[in-house]
Amino acid sequence: MTGVQGAVSVHPLHGIPEITPGSDLAAAIVEAATAIGIRDRDVVVITHKVVSKAEGQIREIPDEATYRQLVEDEAVRIVRRRGDLVIAQTRHGFICANAAVDRSNVAAGYALLLPIDPDRSAHRLRTLIERATGASIGVVITDTFGRPWRRGLTDVAIGISGLPSLVDYRGTTDTHGNVLEVTEVAVVDEIASAADLVMGKATGVPAAIVRGLDITGDGRVSDLIRPPEEDLFR
Amino acid sequence: MTGVQGAVSVHPLHGIPEITPGSDLAAAIVEAATAIGIRDRDVVVITHKVVSKAEGQIREIPDEATYRQLVEDEAVRIVRRRGDLVIAQTRHGFICANAAVDRSNVAAGYALLLPIDPDRSAHRLRTLIERATGASIGVVITDTFGRPWRRGLTDVAIGISGLPSLVDYRGTTDTHGNVLEVTEVAVVDEIASAADLVMGKATGVPAAIVRGLDITGDGRVSDLIRPPEEDLFR
Repeated sequence: MTGVQGAVSVHPLHGIPEITPGSDLAAAIVEAATAIGIRDRDVVVITHKVVSKAEGQIREIPDEATYRQLVEDEAVRIVRRRGDLVIAQTRHGFICANAAVDRSNVAAGYALLLPIDPDRSAHRLRTLIERATGASIGVVITDTFGRPWRRGLTDVAIGISGLPSLVDYRGTTDTHGNVLEVTEVAVVDEIASAADLVMGKATGVPAAIVRGLDITGDGRVSDLIRPPEEDLFR
Repeated sequence: MTGVQGAVSVHPLHGIPEITPGSDLAAAIVEAATAIGIRDRDVVVITHKVVSKAEGQIREIPDEATYRQLVEDEAVRIVRRRGDLVIAQTRHGFICANAAVDRSNVAAGYALLLPIDPDRSAHRLRTLIERATGASIGVVITDTFGRPWRRGLTDVAIGISGLPSLVDYRGTTDTHGNVLEVTEVAVVDEIASAADLVMGKATGVPAAIVRGLDITGDGRVSDLIRPPEEDLFR
């Protein structure tokens, strides 16, 4: 993102078939992208729901008690609890509702868990897509999180490959010659949100291509997790 | 966002001159958009920094003590304080660092405050841009906020006009026929983040056009503020 930034485009990938454990998700994405192609420096954004399904991170939940237990099992720390609402930290470090155990966009009676190692999932998908297309790309796996003080959900990155986790503007100067204070931008979260504009909800579009950014890196999503000593809201 | 969503594009508006109190910001935006035009259903995204400057929401801060006092004055409630870091609620209801008093992207010795009524600012800019172009548009005014559990900043909406604050998928069904649980998407925040991908930091691009969304509404940014009784992290 140095130099003059041109337009960025966000392309929904329609026509990805139902993904089940063992599906070749990378091949399905490449196939769905045939019309627009996949090019160098494209960022392929994929909702974790299809990644989790492909990886078998799906559990039967015959009843509410099973679901509640699954949330407790996925949580390494309960941050807040009020009525049925549980805000919990996952083993990845994410703090979100129900420890990210998800009953939507999966057959009734089932729930989806997050991928075990979402960065590894992103890296594997990136490698497969790069092999199939010859393009050098970035991959972002997303989930939909709430925010403590703002209503409404937004998509954020839960796994990344080939991208910087944070773009650090500290020490650079703004147009007034001031040295900027803390300006680390969570670009991968902004990419996730941009992609959600075309992926939406319940529309059968589990992936998108973000084209026109010129960023590469080898960040890990764990770089985005605020360490306990910086966390004022534990 | 019903029906089939096509591609969305995000266009930086280069060449907006330095904005000062009394500048005609709407005219500057229309001028900067000459090459790509402004069309029906475009969303014009504008960083609050130029809105605040045009509205004279700028204060002299000769020393650190003046800055600290300004933060206290802008805060209606201190949420957390640690060393120099103050997390505070503004009179608009936003919870953010330093009550949104901003020393970056302004001449040394000055600070920017938020617009007094950002929805009204958005509405006024929308009206002026619509009059100049004949297009029916949405406007989002943005600021850059941190998150309690995730490192890095992202842009969010602090003022909106012509758009829904939240897009509510509750009661709709997903592709599996499940009734979705709570799925209110903060689309204007996702628009703000998407625009930041081309506005970046310190690059002199204070506005962007997001094209290809098909959403209109009459939401208010206050709809995005979580009310105290829902806030588990006060």
